[in-house]
Amino acid sequence: MFLRNAWYMAGWAREIDGAMLARRIADTPVVVYRREDGQPAALHDRCPHRFAPLSRGRLEGGVIECGYHGLRFDAGGKCVGNPHGDGRIPQAAQVQAFPLVEKYTLLWIWFGDPARADPSTIPDFSFLDDPGRGRVDGYLHVQANYLLETDNLLDLSHTQFVHPNFHFSEAILQGRHEVTQAGDTVHSNLWCPNGAASPMFAKRIPGYDGRSPVDQWMDMRWDPPCLLRLDTGITPAGRPREEGGQSFTAHILTPETETSTHYFFAHSRNFRVGDADMDEAIAHWQRVGFGEQDKPMLEAVQQAMGTTDLMSLKPVLLPIDTAAVRARRIVRHLLEAEEGAKR
Amino acid sequence: MFLRNAWYMAGWAREIDGAMLARRIADTPVVVYRREDGQPAALHDRCPHRFAPLSRGRLEGGVIECGYHGLRFDAGGKCVGNPHGDGRIPQAAQVQAFPLVEKYTLLWIWFGDPARADPSTIPDFSFLDDPGRGRVDGYLHVQANYLLETDNLLDLSHTQFVHPNFHFSEAILQGRHEVTQAGDTVHSNLWCPNGAASPMFAKRIPGYDGRSPVDQWMDMRWDPPCLLRLDTGITPAGRPREEGGQSFTAHILTPETETSTHYFFAHSRNFRVGDADMDEAIAHWQRVGFGEQDKPMLEAVQQAMGTTDLMSLKPVLLPIDTAAVRARRIVRHLLEAEEGAKR
Amino acid sequence: MFLRNAWYMAGWAREIDGAMLARRIADTPVVVYRREDGQPAALHDRCPHRFAPLSRGRLEGGVIECGYHGLRFDAGGKCVGNPHGDGRIPQAAQVQAFPLVEKYTLLWIWFGDPARADPSTIPDFSFLDDPGRGRVDGYLHVQANYLLETDNLLDLSHTQFVHPNFHFSEAILQGRHEVTQAGDTVHSNLWCPNGAASPMFAKRIPGYDGRSPVDQWMDMRWDPPCLLRLDTGITPAGRPREEGGQSFTAHILTPETETSTHYFFAHSRNFRVGDADMDEAIAHWQRVGFGEQDKPMLEAVQQAMGTTDLMSLKPVLLPIDTAAVRARRIVRHLLEAEEGAKR
Repeated sequence: MFLRNAWYMAGWAREIDGAMLARRIADTPVVVYRREDGQPAALHDRCPHRFAPLSRGRLEGGVIECGYHGLRFDAGGKCVGNPHGDGRIPQAAQVQAFPLVEKYTLLWIWFGDPARADPSTIPDFSFLDDPGRGRVDGYLHVQANYLLETDNLLDLSHTQFVHPNFHFSEAILQGRHEVTQAGDTVHSNLWCPNGAASPMFAKRIPGYDGRSPVDQWMDMRWDPPCLLRLDTGITPAGRPREEGGQSFTAHILTPETETSTHYFFAHSRNFRVGDADMDEAIAHWQRVGFGEQDKPMLEAVQQAMGTTDLMSLKPVLLPIDTAAVRARRIVRHLLEAEEGAKR
Repeated sequence: MFLRNAWYMAGWAREIDGAMLARRIADTPVVVYRREDGQPAALHDRCPHRFAPLSRGRLEGGVIECGYHGLRFDAGGKCVGNPHGDGRIPQAAQVQAFPLVEKYTLLWIWFGDPARADPSTIPDFSFLDDPGRGRVDGYLHVQANYLLETDNLLDLSHTQFVHPNFHFSEAILQGRHEVTQAGDTVHSNLWCPNGAASPMFAKRIPGYDGRSPVDQWMDMRWDPPCLLRLDTGITPAGRPREEGGQSFTAHILTPETETSTHYFFAHSRNFRVGDADMDEAIAHWQRVGFGEQDKPMLEAVQQAMGTTDLMSLKPVLLPIDTAAVRARRIVRHLLEAEEGAKR
Repeated sequence: MFLRNAWYMAGWAREIDGAMLARRIADTPVVVYRREDGQPAALHDRCPHRFAPLSRGRLEGGVIECGYHGLRFDAGGKCVGNPHGDGRIPQAAQVQAFPLVEKYTLLWIWFGDPARADPSTIPDFSFLDDPGRGRVDGYLHVQANYLLETDNLLDLSHTQFVHPNFHFSEAILQGRHEVTQAGDTVHSNLWCPNGAASPMFAKRIPGYDGRSPVDQWMDMRWDPPCLLRLDTGITPAGRPREEGGQSFTAHILTPETETSTHYFFAHSRNFRVGDADMDEAIAHWQRVGFGEQDKPMLEAVQQAMGTTDLMSLKPVLLPIDTAAVRARRIVRHLLEAEEGAKR
């Protein structure tokens, strides 16, 4: 069961430049594409005549022609052409259109009440719009429920066990961890002031002597149902964050089905911008850390659980789970509110 | 759910020359083979002792010996040998035999009441017996319900969208389309008199000047539950069909399971018989048109529908669907009659 | 449904020398390993915190550290370390431990009441401990219920049909077959006195003239739910069995799921010990006979039956099935007794 009144990332904006994109999101097949004026649009990916996926058809002038019998649909889902017989268009020849906006270089889709689809409620990922920052992004298909991945990201203590090759300094392991909630937004912040730099952070400060004390942080922000932003950085002790090496990473977990997830991630930094070695180091971390370490662990957990809900298995709860449990509770409340509104 | 009192094509007659053929038909595993006198026979492909497939055994003198413990069965399904102990044969050692006949170079099986299995009710595919005609046949396994394929074949308007590489002349696109029904047989006929020849038809008339007006046609005949014959041709305007280039194609859609089909096709022509280039052109069309264009589209439709019945999804109906809808209605009525007869 | 109060073979003892072994047994994922003192142990392979398989973690000093968040468990399943925060260990942080013993070079696991887990009830496979015998063992993963394999092994008459390349002499085909039961142990014995030697047995007697009469036997012993020992041999007519060429083979059929089985086999002989050609001949028989002949047949039977229980399909019963039917009846009674005890 997925929240309907919520923004889901449907893909990177660049994915629909010159081509239709077919993707299953929240158990709904959608086709995403650009209208003639360049604006993005999304339709249920299923012709109402014989249920062929519209994404197997042809896009021309913002109109999709079904590849099976040639019915044509505009971006509102209205049938605008029937090549057969007298060309009359049956009233029922209508495809569901979904609100879709392009924002922060990402495509956002809304499955709920269109009247409530307000793009200003999309959490801030404006760092992705900043051409002055360095960016490395990627995608993984993960055979696990998106909430298992939320759990993973909202508890970064897993890092030292799942990613033992990425060493942290003692200062980080002993940082102050704080979980707070503002509205439906959860913050899970680690603050490590005035300590030794972690090797993987140290190289973010050009000319750093390797010894001077630094402030370091790893701040996760979560918005329902699956939108996370990680702010990590290092700065000379006592100096403002922006003066140091600071990265923001979007971790966006779009549910595909109950047991699979589109995992989009985009790392954005203010340091060593344009440095190809730095780009490759980050891409390597995404490949190994996310792809070869997190992904198999999450898929093993999903397999162990089958289709049973995590909470119904009565997991042992540790203090490190605080943020994840809070996020799950918010999603549950929002789902219950949607269910209640239906009655 | 499949009609039981109906003839299904079990395979090409040549498939059982010297070997047993194991095939799942209408959700029933069957083994088809030749008796000692050469007559074909069919048994439920499951030994009643330990349920080993009989097709894994040995065929000798028209008797199948189970490959697991050696029980032997004749073509009537009677156990005629027990190699163990005193050799007594338990009364229950009986396999279900199905009526099976060889006709028109094809094997036809009947799952219903044997008393009603009348081979004279098999629709006419006698063109396949004519050694004077050229033949190109083939087989595809398609992951889609056989009625989805019936829909596809009973509405040839899909051709210009699914097979855009096969160009038709305007005369064909503007032909007169007529759907008629005679008993349980549905005809869906396209008649295109006195017009320009379509490129793919023009080469059927030896020495054709490319300009003279021609009559062209594409006539589909459907018999329940899944037996189609396509009659297509071209002849100088006003001349009898047999004088022109005429082909008959058997399109036979044997259900394997609710979501998969054995698709047998055999193209038979009266023109350029023995011409290997023509053979290859037809084989190429079958490979590309049926295998690379129709098959993926039908499988995508099946996937989009899941196991839901097409009509329960309330598809938009177009005039082009007339024949297909009629065929589905006939199948439904026959199924209801069978169900009613059981009560 | 599987017996809980029973010993199942979890693996070869050598499989846990220096590594954890993860295996699904009777539908339960277990991790088997050695404690610091070398004693074997088994835990439910699922961390109670986030359900990660413990086998994906690290084993150190007999303690398993979960690979996801680092909780540590001892061989009793008790959580003995929490690396987070104040390190307090929640009461619920407990993994189920299963009795596991090493006996006859095999690992034996018990899923039922620990108080009833008495290793002395493991049937005698002591021939595997004898360093003076020659041994060839192996493993097959079979997609069939373990009782279908029991049926197969308790009726060796299948040999002449499934394994036609292994020829038996007339003396063997005409041996006296006797099925007896002692407690819950079933014996299915074939005794072939004073006849011609079967080719595959003849080479077991060094210097055998190929003509002198011999006594031959094939005795199967079954203990619930899935432990078989085959005693086969040849000896000069009238001489004690130990004087001839005698082999014992363990055939152990550990259920993985309702439709798959871990098939362990170990052949042990008193003849031509240390002879590499003999070793290879036995390995070849295991590879071909068990792997290429029995396995596909059993998997075809399982496929034909689906998830239906064999007996509910009302199989034809032959005298050769006596031992198999008796074994199934014992398993059923034991299961019913366990069910009854729960109420």
